[in-house]
Order: sequence, then C-alpha cells, then structure tokens
Amino acid sequence: MAAFVQRKAQCLARVDASRKGGLDERAAAVVQLLNGRSRFCTTSSCSGRLVLAQGGAAMTALEKATGDVVLKFEPFVLHVLCQELQDAQLLHSVAVNSGFRNSGITVGRGGKIMMAVRSTHCLEVPLSHKGKLMVSEEYMEFLIDVANRKMEENTRRIGRFYKCLELALEAPTSADTSPEETGKNHAVYTRRRKRKTIQGQEAHTSPKDHSEEPGPADDAETNLGIFAELML
Amino acid sequence: MAAFVQRKAQCLARVDASRKGGLDERAAAVVQLLNGRSRFCTTSSCSGRLVLAQGGAAMTALEKATGDVVLKFEPFVLHVLCQELQDAQLLHSVAVNSGFRNSGITVGRGGKIMMAVRSTHCLEVPLSHKGKLMVSEEYMEFLIDVANRKMEENTRRIGRFYKCLELALEAPTSADTSPEETGKNHAVYTRRRKRKTIQGQEAHTSPKDHSEEPGPADDAETNLGIFAELML
Repeated sequence: MAAFVQRKAQCLARVDASRKGGLDERAAAVVQLLNGRSRFCTTSSCSGRLVLAQGGAAMTALEKATGDVVLKFEPFVLHVLCQELQDAQLLHSVAVNSGFRNSGITVGRGGKIMMAVRSTHCLEVPLSHKGKLMVSEEYMEFLIDVANRKMEENTRRIGRFYKCLELALEAPTSADTSPEETGKNHAVYTRRRKRKTIQGQEAHTSPKDHSEEPGPADDAETNLGIFAELML
Repeated sequence: MAAFVQRKAQCLARVDASRKGGLDERAAAVVQLLNGRSRFCTTSSCSGRLVLAQGGAAMTALEKATGDVVLKFEPFVLHVLCQELQDAQLLHSVAVNSGFRNSGITVGRGGKIMMAVRSTHCLEVPLSHKGKLMVSEEYMEFLIDVANRKMEENTRRIGRFYKCLELALEAPTSADTSPEETGKNHAVYTRRRKRKTIQGQEAHTSPKDHSEEPGPADDAETNLGIFAELML
C-alpha cells in the first residue's frame, strides 16, 4: 500500500507531457473522480480524437499531401493505476458495462496493476495514395458526418462511464483503507469526503499511441491535424 | 487448480458454435500450442477477417445494398483462460511484444482469469449511405489492396506471436504442475512432451463481436460477406 501511495504521488506530480499540455475537457470529470480516490491514479487519457495522418515526410494539407493520407477516429482511452487487483476488477466491470469492451488489466512484474479503458469504436479510412486524393468532396462530407456521429456516441459513453463509476465508487463498504477488510467485498467502496484537489492532479498525459501508455515517440506517421470535431 | 482442470475439460468438450464451425487455419498453430499446456485453455479465436457489413435489414450485394455499407478489417483475436495470474502475465507480455498492443487481462468474480490477445490494427470504411455507393471502383481496388496488406501484416504478427510463445513456454523451469513452485518464476515453463490432441480441442468458437467472448448474438449489423482476402 505504501508503494502505491508513493507511486501515485510521483505520478500526479509529473509534468503533463502531452502535446496539448493538459486534460481533455470531456475526460476531466472521470479523471478527477478517480484521482479523488486513494486506490486509483490515472496516468493517461484522451477523450477521443479525429486524426488526419500521413505516412511519409511532408506536413501539408490534405489536397497537397504527397503520401498516403488516412483519416482515423479514435475513441476515449484511459489508463488507471490501481492499488489492488480488486480495484482494477471493479473499474473493468464498469468500463465494459459502459460500452468500453476492449478494456483490460495489465499486471506488471513489479506488481504494478493497470486498467486500460478501451473501445473498438473507430474509423480508419485511407483517403489518398501517393499524393492522389482517392475520394470525392461529397464522400469527405459524408465521412465527416459519420466521424462526428461516432464522436457524439463516444461522448455519451464517457458520460455513461462517469455515472456508473460514481455509483460503483459510492456504494457503501466498511473501509477502503484497510487491506484486510477490502478483501471481503471487492465491488464497493466507502464514500469519502471530496478531497482537496492535489496540486498537479490535472497534469496528465495523453498517449500518442492510442492504445497504450505514453512512451518514446513513434514517428511512423505524421499528423496533419487533430480535430475534436470536423466541419467542412 | 482442480477447478481450472475441470473448466478446461468442459471448454474443450464444447461444440464449436462459430458460423464457420472450426478453427481458422492461421490461428490453429497458436491454439494447439496453448491447449497443449495444462495452464492454458483457448476459448475463442479469429485469425483476422474482412467484413462487408450493412446496418439495416436487407442482405444484398454491395451495389444493391439499401442501407449503409461499411468495410471492416479486424485482426487476429484470441481469448485464453489461464490457470493463474502469472500465466496470464506471461501471455500478455508475449502478445504485446508481438504487436498485439491492446491485449489485456480480465479477472472474473469467480476467479476466472482470461487473457485477450488484441490489436489496434484495423480498417473501418463507410462505403455507401442509404443505398447510394459513395466511392468509385478505383477506390474500391485501392481499398482492397490496403486491406490485403493489413491482412498480410496480421499474418506476420500471428507468426511472431507463435514463435515468441513457443520460446516463452519452452524456457526451463522446475515444474508447472506444482502451484508453490511455479510461484517462484512466473516467466518460464517446463517443456512437456506433446500431448495427444484432446478430442474436441479444435472445436473452437469465433467471437461474433471481435473484441469479446462469444455471447448472445448482436444483430445490429448484417454481414454481407466475410472474406479472408478480397480480390476485385
């Protein structure tokens, strides 16, 4: 337990290394809810994004792109360090019930327990090939509409996740400070007084590779642009 | 341990409930390698697929489709019941190192430990809207080429996964039959004589929803066709 407390303190004290430099607004409530609990510590999140990505070296707009351009929609993703396996199980259950069906637990060799909230809800659409745009403007309008609707569904799922999480964390239990007692009932937690926000709590990284913890930059793709919502 | 042995026996005795009714050829080697070990039991797999899916009621070819048609590429997915958490950790490590970076562990309330091998490697491309085909034949040829290349990369990853798994499972250790001893070193397993194939070992389900265990059918989409490799 002491190890987890220290790990959490170090984690929340870190500078936000994401390109954006801060929490996504649509992920903030969930992040703060979890970090307000002693047993959880979020390590990275992204509320969802639309990305125009190009393989190759040039950084230019879609019409001038010289490589292969792909539009991607990537949904909400969240990584949470958990104090014990039962905490990860609770979070996993909530995530799956909220629609994030690709969620899963990782247990590292040092005993580090991570829960990744993930979804299959995506788009990946090749748009151009060796500089030649392969789709019409009409298709682009249609595609943007599809992407925006996926983003809306994604936002609804985040809301569902927040509500289910709140319920799950507020269910009464004996204590969440005693490891022996928490073993008895892994599905419920004591409601605690809202803690004062820990300084740096919102310093939060957004994973560059959407499915994993932030790591060394992977420059296989150049992002032409990242949009929360695209309009044509 | 006895519970796991029983669970495995029941699982392998089940009739294959997939549409195909048998193992995918490209997943077979991995499945058999795992099922030949006492500590693992595969429950579902799919070597990867290209799907033309339509929301709506009609089952017709792409040109005649009356709804919204989407082409999807879904990569290799595998679900494995594991005897203990350390077994799942080993498998998780191998999966991630082979490129299946969305892999994760689930621990059910009854202590059931599942490892899901998953990847972000996908395509999802809307092709038609309310019956109107939105892309050209040239784009379809381009798209099929992209999809086939993803399938080839997927096949390479399965090969990598198999090789890494073989190495990981063959690394010498004291025994994998004694729970106390296996606790000492979670990363390695004794090489066993190849067991005679258990009858029904190849009776294996392929999950309809690609990211999870097979469950009640979800008819939100009608599949127009499932192709291992598309040619135009």
